[in-house]
Amino acid sequence: MTQQPLYFDDLRIGDRFQSPTYALDAEDIKRFAAEFDPQPFHLDEEAARGTIFGGLAASGWHTAAITMRLLVTGGPKLANGIVGAGGDIEWKTPARPGDVLHVDSEVVELIPSRSRPDRGLAVLRATTLNQRGDTVQVVNAKLMVSRQSAA
Amino acid sequence: MTQQPLYFDDLRIGDRFQSPTYALDAEDIKRFAAEFDPQPFHLDEEAARGTIFGGLAASGWHTAAITMRLLVTGGPKLANGIVGAGGDIEWKTPARPGDVLHVDSEVVELIPSRSRPDRGLAVLRATTLNQRGDTVQVVNAKLMVSRQSAA
Repeated sequence: MTQQPLYFDDLRIGDRFQSPTYALDAEDIKRFAAEFDPQPFHLDEEAARGTIFGGLAASGWHTAAITMRLLVTGGPKLANGIVGAGGDIEWKTPARPGDVLHVDSEVVELIPSRSRPDRGLAVLRATTLNQRGDTVQVVNAKLMVSRQSAA
Repeated sequence: MTQQPLYFDDLRIGDRFQSPTYALDAEDIKRFAAEFDPQPFHLDEEAARGTIFGGLAASGWHTAAITMRLLVTGGPKLANGIVGAGGDIEWKTPARPGDVLHVDSEVVELIPSRSRPDRGLAVLRATTLNQRGDTVQVVNAKLMVSRQSAA
């Protein structure tokens, strides 16, 4: 993996990136939830027990935010940064206190812009896994990527 | 809008919900970014000026997290809480310092589970708007919703 900034034409379908790890504890889960997703199963172990989660679980949006952090530090080093236009997201199993997460990502689609010759769209599939290898979340992110001619 | 907890069979396609507002400032944007999306256009006004954003902009995941907060406080009061299996997300225009956001949401699809008679899937389209009425983000969230028989 090079540290040279990558432009659209440097990317190939199948390019893969592996992130460092991120350790999540109960306090992190509760702090994020108190600010952004204040529901019992994200806020309190006791209250979480009787819910669909059966115990304290991270908000899916917390998992998504951690995934973004791991992509910034351990995804493709795009020349214009990691800038998303959108995508789809699937939560497979919740992140739990004590989990150590990492993100494996792969370029799965490359679409040059017809109207804007200075950029293209790269679809990056980012899979967030826990320390047991369970898939926690899958995002297919549509990233806007500059072309070198634009630089 | 009732405050009675809602079950799957209480929902109708076209049901709409309007959230309260959320005021975003530059410090919020930088604090979220420092933790989850540490890129120049989310961290520093000066550095943001020369980027695709042309100025400080909130991380899309920050907008998503704020949207979740606004859905918890001003979306459907589902009996089992707002629990997402996934969805798709589109960022139309970035949230900026000084923006006041709100979320309009609408039930757009209702799918009873074939394998689990105690639940169904509701697709909630959540549109996040700023104080000028510009659409900042659209999420189609697949929510797991309990059926009353399960209670």
